[in-house]
Amino acid sequence: MTSPAVLSDVRRELADLHQALIESGLVVWTAGNVSARVDDEHFLIKPSGLAYEELTPESMVLCDMDGEPVDADALKPSSDVFAHAYVYRHRADVGGVVHTHSTYATAWAARNEAIPCVLTAMADEFGGEIPVGPFALIGGDDIGRGVVETLDGHRSPAVLMRNHGVFTIGGSARSAVKAAVMCEDVARTVHISRQLGAPLPIAQPDIDSLYDRYQNVYGQ
Amino acid sequence: MTSPAVLSDVRRELADLHQALIESGLVVWTAGNVSARVDDEHFLIKPSGLAYEELTPESMVLCDMDGEPVDADALKPSSDVFAHAYVYRHRADVGGVVHTHSTYATAWAARNEAIPCVLTAMADEFGGEIPVGPFALIGGDDIGRGVVETLDGHRSPAVLMRNHGVFTIGGSARSAVKAAVMCEDVARTVHISRQLGAPLPIAQPDIDSLYDRYQNVYGQ
Amino acid sequence: MTSPAVLSDVRRELADLHQALIESGLVVWTAGNVSARVDDEHFLIKPSGLAYEELTPESMVLCDMDGEPVDADALKPSSDVFAHAYVYRHRADVGGVVHTHSTYATAWAARNEAIPCVLTAMADEFGGEIPVGPFALIGGDDIGRGVVETLDGHRSPAVLMRNHGVFTIGGSARSAVKAAVMCEDVARTVHISRQLGAPLPIAQPDIDSLYDRYQNVYGQ
Amino acid sequence: MTSPAVLSDVRRELADLHQALIESGLVVWTAGNVSARVDDEHFLIKPSGLAYEELTPESMVLCDMDGEPVDADALKPSSDVFAHAYVYRHRADVGGVVHTHSTYATAWAARNEAIPCVLTAMADEFGGEIPVGPFALIGGDDIGRGVVETLDGHRSPAVLMRNHGVFTIGGSARSAVKAAVMCEDVARTVHISRQLGAPLPIAQPDIDSLYDRYQNVYGQ
Repeated sequence: MTSPAVLSDVRRELADLHQALIESGLVVWTAGNVSARVDDEHFLIKPSGLAYEELTPESMVLCDMDGEPVDADALKPSSDVFAHAYVYRHRADVGGVVHTHSTYATAWAARNEAIPCVLTAMADEFGGEIPVGPFALIGGDDIGRGVVETLDGHRSPAVLMRNHGVFTIGGSARSAVKAAVMCEDVARTVHISRQLGAPLPIAQPDIDSLYDRYQNVYGQ
Repeated sequence: MTSPAVLSDVRRELADLHQALIESGLVVWTAGNVSARVDDEHFLIKPSGLAYEELTPESMVLCDMDGEPVDADALKPSSDVFAHAYVYRHRADVGGVVHTHSTYATAWAARNEAIPCVLTAMADEFGGEIPVGPFALIGGDDIGRGVVETLDGHRSPAVLMRNHGVFTIGGSARSAVKAAVMCEDVARTVHISRQLGAPLPIAQPDIDSLYDRYQNVYGQ
Repeated sequence: MTSPAVLSDVRRELADLHQALIESGLVVWTAGNVSARVDDEHFLIKPSGLAYEELTPESMVLCDMDGEPVDADALKPSSDVFAHAYVYRHRADVGGVVHTHSTYATAWAARNEAIPCVLTAMADEFGGEIPVGPFALIGGDDIGRGVVETLDGHRSPAVLMRNHGVFTIGGSARSAVKAAVMCEDVARTVHISRQLGAPLPIAQPDIDSLYDRYQNVYGQ
Repeated sequence: MTSPAVLSDVRRELADLHQALIESGLVVWTAGNVSARVDDEHFLIKPSGLAYEELTPESMVLCDMDGEPVDADALKPSSDVFAHAYVYRHRADVGGVVHTHSTYATAWAARNEAIPCVLTAMADEFGGEIPVGPFALIGGDDIGRGVVETLDGHRSPAVLMRNHGVFTIGGSARSAVKAAVMCEDVARTVHISRQLGAPLPIAQPDIDSLYDRYQNVYGQ
């Protein structure tokens, strides 16, 4: 199992990422949550219903892969915990999961409509459209299964869940937060573009070229 | 009557909640107000026409259930005081009331149009549509009566008042502020969704299930 | 002439009001300006082309009623100085003038369209529609004349200048800033309301009643 | 070559301008970049993929006019470095270049649509429409050539690149940032104006008069 020092680092990073979520305007009040895989058997997630300013590294809840808290005296985990657990169980490559009801992405989700890839920034980060998954009720495996099955066969690390909001995944919790920020950004820009006409499509070979470069050349 | 220590705590919380209102972008300049029930005979409310940065715990005005200030040297209470008083007299379960002209909610109100329940977050918090109440002039019981009568028969703690703005209620002032924040959030998302088409409805049994879970399972 | 102590107070207030303008999101970069009448012969106004973070009480430019700086070594006044001067010369009741290109108000102005009075908050502050004035070039009396002539016969302290932006007036500079904030707020709400249909009108007697109460009863 | 003291000043100013970019809401996460010409042979530019809060004066990358870093141990420059280099090589008057995906400007770009000059503030800063350039892939000279060729024959210091975002130029990096801020501001206002009808055009002689005055009279 992960050492206390490493666990403590992940707790601190996860608390910081929740602040990034609220500073980016992706969440209000207590909505939204981030989780981070700790090891093969555990992940950390936001506690349920706490205000963002109350979130501390210590308040993050260590859960097993069934979404059950490991410590008897821990806070209750986010009510989305089972969706996060499902994703970790079925995607060994995922190190972090984010869920928000960010405005523009959720507006597309409410119409059950995927976001078309009409921006180079979308080709970079999502490699194509941002798909939309099924309507699913909270509390069991339905949301997690919808997320995993919809992302299967897409390059996108983001999925819109119908009438609900967005889930994003990443190799790390930070990458998943980045995907959530970029998802809302392109959801907003494409929405606004379409308000006054039809945004032009980007040719598939150009999308492929942009995605390949961004994934392999961008950054340090 | 409530002890000075408790009254002092409510004053401080009420001043803090007004800051939450302005930080959430729900109010501008001196518009909007929050009140908190103190006991069966009294509530505290924002003074009239003060800037948010001037609001202190001591500036909050203690009123009786007719909306009259208890202390002769108190500031004049919000001009919405009679609407708040009406709600407290007719709803013993209400511990806090919020009024705003928040942008998107007021835009629905200006069209006399209820916000349909097309988001799971709306089913969670409002249990259905957010209804719209009558046009009413300020200064008497008309607004308060419109609020109480419209909320009667709805699960929603928020009501849009025609051509005017939003009133929300809660078991506490903090719950009423939460409802005001969530009301604007869903008013905005549903508005934006509908700009480019028709958001899909959520089936009534799913709304019921979401509402039940959120009211009874969510949080600590 | 005004005492140095009073002048110093007005300088400080004017610098603060410019910060309120940028914090309210009504201006970007160096756009927009506020002026304050000092006495029958003078007013203070923002210097031309300075960034908001560079504005100090001392940088505000004292001008005579022709818009000419009084001090030889003062900064150059805002290029809108002649419009402000015209207003002060023709409206003895005006103690402050504000000019912005705030987004939603300017969007109405670009269509040459008045904002209809469909919100109680608009009836309160503006007492009816916010009118639109003529297209006018900067640098002479044309803008000032357009402002004064258009406001004549309206209760509104705000006027949209065609293809340009907003001018607001008030008994004090602070009142004019309030009118600028409220103007953008109602311009945005009415715009958003109309995006999905037709906001309902408010009957004239109700507008009159709301305006009368707000002007005479609201505040301390 | 430029002295170390001057280079150090440019590094500090460039770091500050990146903060202005994020504070103005023009960029999210690591998107967007500013560069500043240092001398005839060199310019400084943002490193690739760093978060805005990690940007320091020292992290800015000194490049030659082919976009190659001068120092072997420097960070990797922005992946847009070749576009910036192309602009500096072909426009001796340019001292700064900015690139963003700011929301409203990019929405126009996704439709391949120039922004018409319907605001006096647009006539002031851009002297006419903001043109739109070709679709171009990142990594070579295509984007830079598209920027230079499109701006040729326009007064505008801003160009929308199709499906991509905005490039702005200026005599200094600060002027280019100003153009980026103003570009998003007018892109938003014209978009919103057109949502409810047709903004009125401004006559060409009036555009010419406004542009001439703003370029020659405005400021200190």
